[in-house]
Amino acid sequence: MKTGILTIGNELISGKTRDTNASFVARELYLQGWQVSVIMSVGDDENDIKSGLDHILSLSDAVVITGGLGPTVDDITTAALAHAFSLNLYTDVTALKHLKERFQKYRLPWTENNAKQAVFPEGSETILNPVGTAWGFTLKRGRKIIAVIPGVPAEVKRMVPEGVIPAFRKEFAQEALAIAHRTIRLSGITEARVDEALADVDFDALGVTIGFYPDFPEIQIVLSARCSSDTEALEKIKKAEVQVTARLRHYIFAYDQETIESIVASSLTNKGLTVAIAESCTGGLITDRLTNIPGSSSFLERSVIAYSNQAKTDLLGVPEEILKSFGAVSEQAAILMAQGVRTSGKTDIGVAVTGIAGPTGGSDEKPVGTVFIALTDGSKSFCRHYSFRWDRRRNKIIASQATLIMLKRYLTGELEHE
Amino acid sequence: MKTGILTIGNELISGKTRDTNASFVARELYLQGWQVSVIMSVGDDENDIKSGLDHILSLSDAVVITGGLGPTVDDITTAALAHAFSLNLYTDVTALKHLKERFQKYRLPWTENNAKQAVFPEGSETILNPVGTAWGFTLKRGRKIIAVIPGVPAEVKRMVPEGVIPAFRKEFAQEALAIAHRTIRLSGITEARVDEALADVDFDALGVTIGFYPDFPEIQIVLSARCSSDTEALEKIKKAEVQVTARLRHYIFAYDQETIESIVASSLTNKGLTVAIAESCTGGLITDRLTNIPGSSSFLERSVIAYSNQAKTDLLGVPEEILKSFGAVSEQAAILMAQGVRTSGKTDIGVAVTGIAGPTGGSDEKPVGTVFIALTDGSKSFCRHYSFRWDRRRNKIIASQATLIMLKRYLTGELEHE
Repeated sequence: MKTGILTIGNELISGKTRDTNASFVARELYLQGWQVSVIMSVGDDENDIKSGLDHILSLSDAVVITGGLGPTVDDITTAALAHAFSLNLYTDVTALKHLKERFQKYRLPWTENNAKQAVFPEGSETILNPVGTAWGFTLKRGRKIIAVIPGVPAEVKRMVPEGVIPAFRKEFAQEALAIAHRTIRLSGITEARVDEALADVDFDALGVTIGFYPDFPEIQIVLSARCSSDTEALEKIKKAEVQVTARLRHYIFAYDQETIESIVASSLTNKGLTVAIAESCTGGLITDRLTNIPGSSSFLERSVIAYSNQAKTDLLGVPEEILKSFGAVSEQAAILMAQGVRTSGKTDIGVAVTGIAGPTGGSDEKPVGTVFIALTDGSKSFCRHYSFRWDRRRNKIIASQATLIMLKRYLTGELEHE
Repeated sequence: MKTGILTIGNELISGKTRDTNASFVARELYLQGWQVSVIMSVGDDENDIKSGLDHILSLSDAVVITGGLGPTVDDITTAALAHAFSLNLYTDVTALKHLKERFQKYRLPWTENNAKQAVFPEGSETILNPVGTAWGFTLKRGRKIIAVIPGVPAEVKRMVPEGVIPAFRKEFAQEALAIAHRTIRLSGITEARVDEALADVDFDALGVTIGFYPDFPEIQIVLSARCSSDTEALEKIKKAEVQVTARLRHYIFAYDQETIESIVASSLTNKGLTVAIAESCTGGLITDRLTNIPGSSSFLERSVIAYSNQAKTDLLGVPEEILKSFGAVSEQAAILMAQGVRTSGKTDIGVAVTGIAGPTGGSDEKPVGTVFIALTDGSKSFCRHYSFRWDRRRNKIIASQATLIMLKRYLTGELEHE
């Protein structure tokens, strides 16, 4: 089955917004084993939408359209499609009810232009929007199918796997070979080195295709197998995974939809352990990431972002002499910060990060990107020294990643044996 | 003049690589005042390239093509174009010489497949590649022009402004109108309400086009004017901006490339003021955002993420009785947290946020999304109560945005007069 993608919005063709939806949708389709023939972006212009869709339909059996379903005058996707196919529009009462309830629930003032988001072309089937206002729809034209969803990335991320893919699978049931995927998530290694490490593995012979998706600060390896049965597909994936793990074990931190935050959070919760964090160069990012997990208040007692030396002394009890003789960016300071925050929070674990995010503040001895990460449980303390080489924001991200991975390794017992 | 963009590469249609070239090229063309009608991506497939280019040429006077100019077998762009237009191929001696010199300079082993990168369709004009191996070229078809360059982002960033734009300007000299833009950034208002507020303004009559770009948690309004002179374009923009400001003043927090973080950081730095922050439901996000700004250590003394009540008492001095009688999510707690962190940090300003990010923890009286934000300068204290209505992550983002905006309003003196 061939597929195509049309993303709609003036912000895309003016270069104002980088189109993240197109690559997300492409990947979701590709991982189903469906070839993507063409990706196109046009503005909120009826003629461009129509001629673009004509072109895509000439190359594809199924088309995903994103964008232009909002309440404002420049949102014209639904009307343009209805016009292109000479269909009337109707208001879906269920969608309208859902929409009004959402406004009520969030105490938003209802304005009539919002009702537009419950209007669909005749003959279409609606796609529920679990995280936003505008519902999507599918529309069949002969043996082809078109799915239309809003352009908000968070909504696309839910509606493609939950609404669009199932609708396409149903439509092209004869194509539905069993397909299995496994995403292996790595950190602390470059794409070139992953490629090199796997150069001797013959994935073709294993009946598996492999894709690399770098997504800073991690690299995702996606293994896919299409077979006549699920069992067979899963078996092939398993064999390929064994090969990958044998070569890259040290860099693997998660699988499939897991994140390092979610793994650390579950592990802390399951073990009933609490943690306190002292951040410096990461500026709160570690705690921000951990507190994205619902229920984080059960294991996170406190964090201190000790940006000044005074704060390191006041709140974490790091003696001034240590900061003077070794510097705030040092193994000594990192360990004392971890011990200090653990003591003040009366937690099981204390974690601390100190470093130089840049662009200024570096020296010959301690260049930008120098980071010390420490962890203590009261009886043992660990410290790791890193030299990152990115800009300020990415140094913060990669230092927070390294901290969460260290915490994970502590929780699995690996840290002790490194 | 209408333009179109075609990016070529299997990595784009499989979702493996996010296409950053398309948005870069689009913006460069758009800022020249040239409308981009369509952006398309296809794989390294001759038929898809040909039919895609046909479609784009039917809509555009000028086309930029990126990708598929490398030395490997799947790089077929040049051959596909020559074939599509029935043109012979020739080797450009200057390009070949440059290519071989580059290999020598970087001591790369020369292999014959590299010579492919100096081959062009008959009648084309070469575009120098200042940072890579494959040169680009322009090709005229009737009154239309096609520019082809490699897909390496660093090469695109040089070759578009240095090669492609000058070639297009030369070709369409009569079109070179002046163009001006203004981005107005709003927060705390929905797109539908922005639309409604501006419904009575006749932007057409003002000679200005308006676009809305929602980018959670903000909405950007972009005004554009195209005229024969810069002065005239700027004047039109200014008149339209007056209309927007008159209707939406309260929600505007920044213009053009400014961010709320950068505004707050400059203002604190310029006034020589320091700040300490007590976060709860935002989990470090406010401090993370502020510390993304280089030099933030000059105004940020410390932050405390007081996730537990114990931390609120220990680190911020909020009396237990207050937490018991009013709750940790209350105006009383927020103000005491702000005062506590200001006192402990000995800073000019103390800021605090306490709330319920969700999905659990809400009650009838204080539902998920309830947030109190407080600010104190020692003599005056302010507190605002918000009811957000998003998921956990977006509640954190919007609460951090509201906090930074409150800090900005304090610094401009607006907060006192609200």
